[in-house]
Amino acid sequence: MKMRGQFISFEGPEGAGKTTVIAALSNRLQAEGEDVVLTREPGGIRISEKIREVILDNRFTEMDARTEALLYAAARRQHLVEKIMPALERGAIVLCDRFIDSSLAYQGYARGLGIEEVLTINQFAIEETMPDLTIFFDIEPETGLSRIASNDEREQNRLDKENIRFHRDVYEGYRMLIDRYPNRIIQTDARLTKEVVTENVWKIISSRLM
Amino acid sequence: MKMRGQFISFEGPEGAGKTTVIAALSNRLQAEGEDVVLTREPGGIRISEKIREVILDNRFTEMDARTEALLYAAARRQHLVEKIMPALERGAIVLCDRFIDSSLAYQGYARGLGIEEVLTINQFAIEETMPDLTIFFDIEPETGLSRIASNDEREQNRLDKENIRFHRDVYEGYRMLIDRYPNRIIQTDARLTKEVVTENVWKIISSRLM
Repeated sequence: MKMRGQFISFEGPEGAGKTTVIAALSNRLQAEGEDVVLTREPGGIRISEKIREVILDNRFTEMDARTEALLYAAARRQHLVEKIMPALERGAIVLCDRFIDSSLAYQGYARGLGIEEVLTINQFAIEETMPDLTIFFDIEPETGLSRIASNDEREQNRLDKENIRFHRDVYEGYRMLIDRYPNRIIQTDARLTKEVVTENVWKIISSRLM
Repeated sequence: MKMRGQFISFEGPEGAGKTTVIAALSNRLQAEGEDVVLTREPGGIRISEKIREVILDNRFTEMDARTEALLYAAARRQHLVEKIMPALERGAIVLCDRFIDSSLAYQGYARGLGIEEVLTINQFAIEETMPDLTIFFDIEPETGLSRIASNDEREQNRLDKENIRFHRDVYEGYRMLIDRYPNRIIQTDARLTKEVVTENVWKIISSRLM
């Protein structure tokens, strides 16, 4: 029996460059012989994909903030059960692009539902499976959004189109979570080049894995 | 300004005859000049309909019980916000075919998630809007299911196909809720003819509305 693997999540404002860095980290871990599962919600899980379609449908402007939060929790649950839990049980390192902190910052803080209340429904969804480590990509939301705007390959969805005030609130929500979970959430300066950010995050992860 | 209306929900095993009785009650209330809204989840609310499609999809046999419970809570929230709350605010009588107790009995008790835990996510969904009165259609699950089997017009979905043990557990869950909420949940004998059940429920409702 192997020990339970490591569950690492990555968080930050839109356009913080998470995706590129996580891919580089995954390659590097695999090159060192680690069993790595790189994923993001909905993670190819068909039920979660279906739920995500509902959340991100541009026509559904009447969607209530609590409905949205419950749908995110439902999609998270199914992805966790089908993909993350089995990987952790076989001892793999799971790298997950966004997880519970996104809901706490976006729905709990920025949409004003309350971090505690959104935490409650997410605890129902994830039970005991909290990330062992969370890397926060620290970048001003204005900078992140301007990166997205200049990137033609990335399609804008309903959330990208929210106004800047909302994204500032999300950032503020993340700052509160960093204060709340100082041992789990480690920050990295995401204004630097992708290569430097990758190197910095690599150091954080390897010190935790040893 | 009118006072807040009355919110009445109807619960019971599959095939208890709720639908026919609720329609008769609605007609009778309207004949007395009441503003009545007859609804059931997802209630024609397009977001809730979409969510319901995911829940009842026969292909999704891998759906986790917690995912299902969160989806029901999400569909409930949107239906409540778009249809029930506005009706109550204008002073209408809302008759709702199944509401929170279905989740507590089906997911909380019969699927073993725990009534308390399912109550928590549903409290997030409905906030303060609990039914003022709930009518429980009391019938043995075997009797209810045999009624469905003999009714060609009613299409069977994933839930109807659960085995009889599950439906007995649902019934037991309802019995626990009746003990827990003796003032809110009133039982009626659903083995009687539709006409007699309608008359009996009419008496319960009119005594509450006076």
